[in-house]
Amino acid sequence: MINDPLSVTFAALADPTRRSILAQLTQGEATVNELAAPHSMSLPAVSRHLKVLEKAGLVVKGREAQWRPCRLEVAPLRDVDRWMAPYRDFFERRIDRLEEHLKTMRTDRKPEEESS
Amino acid sequence: MINDPLSVTFAALADPTRRSILAQLTQGEATVNELAAPHSMSLPAVSRHLKVLEKAGLVVKGREAQWRPCRLEVAPLRDVDRWMAPYRDFFERRIDRLEEHLKTMRTDRKPEEESS
Repeated sequence: MINDPLSVTFAALADPTRRSILAQLTQGEATVNELAAPHSMSLPAVSRHLKVLEKAGLVVKGREAQWRPCRLEVAPLRDVDRWMAPYRDFFERRIDRLEEHLKTMRTDRKPEEESS
Repeated sequence: MINDPLSVTFAALADPTRRSILAQLTQGEATVNELAAPHSMSLPAVSRHLKVLEKAGLVVKGREAQWRPCRLEVAPLRDVDRWMAPYRDFFERRIDRLEEHLKTMRTDRKPEEESS
């Protein structure tokens, strides 16, 4: 069983319904009923997804007995963002290299165009 | 079975060994043997992890018969980065609010300090 926090976060994100729930929660707190509404899903099914998100610390449930609103907790996503940093450098460098290459192509083409 | 590309990428990242393999590949191409070396793992075990990474498009294997070097392919991570964007705004706003709050605290404290 893998249960380091980053792996638990990535596993929680590996589902379109769970990502959709997180997107809904960027708009503000919501009850399980409100979260279930846009999905053609039973309440128990949505609750199971919420449990995975809660376990990953991405969703926190309020403690009020009747109305237990869920809210987004972005701290685990900040950890994903930190993990991404070296790879972001990697693909930004690649974009830089591509731009450099395109510039060279344009420079190379100029004399050719002049000679034609 | 969940098999949308972003879910497949997140599932592939939900393992410390696979993330470690990706980190190794930021240093350049490597063979399966070279990738297995830092992990106390059998070649078949590393190969299984590589298959998951290949399926997610995060690793590409060379076609040379003998030496089939693996290389990192960052395109799926760029998709993760794009997916992260609204959440990044979310936690950056939170940091802004925190800074604002700390500034207010400092301003509020000043008269207090003067009166004591």
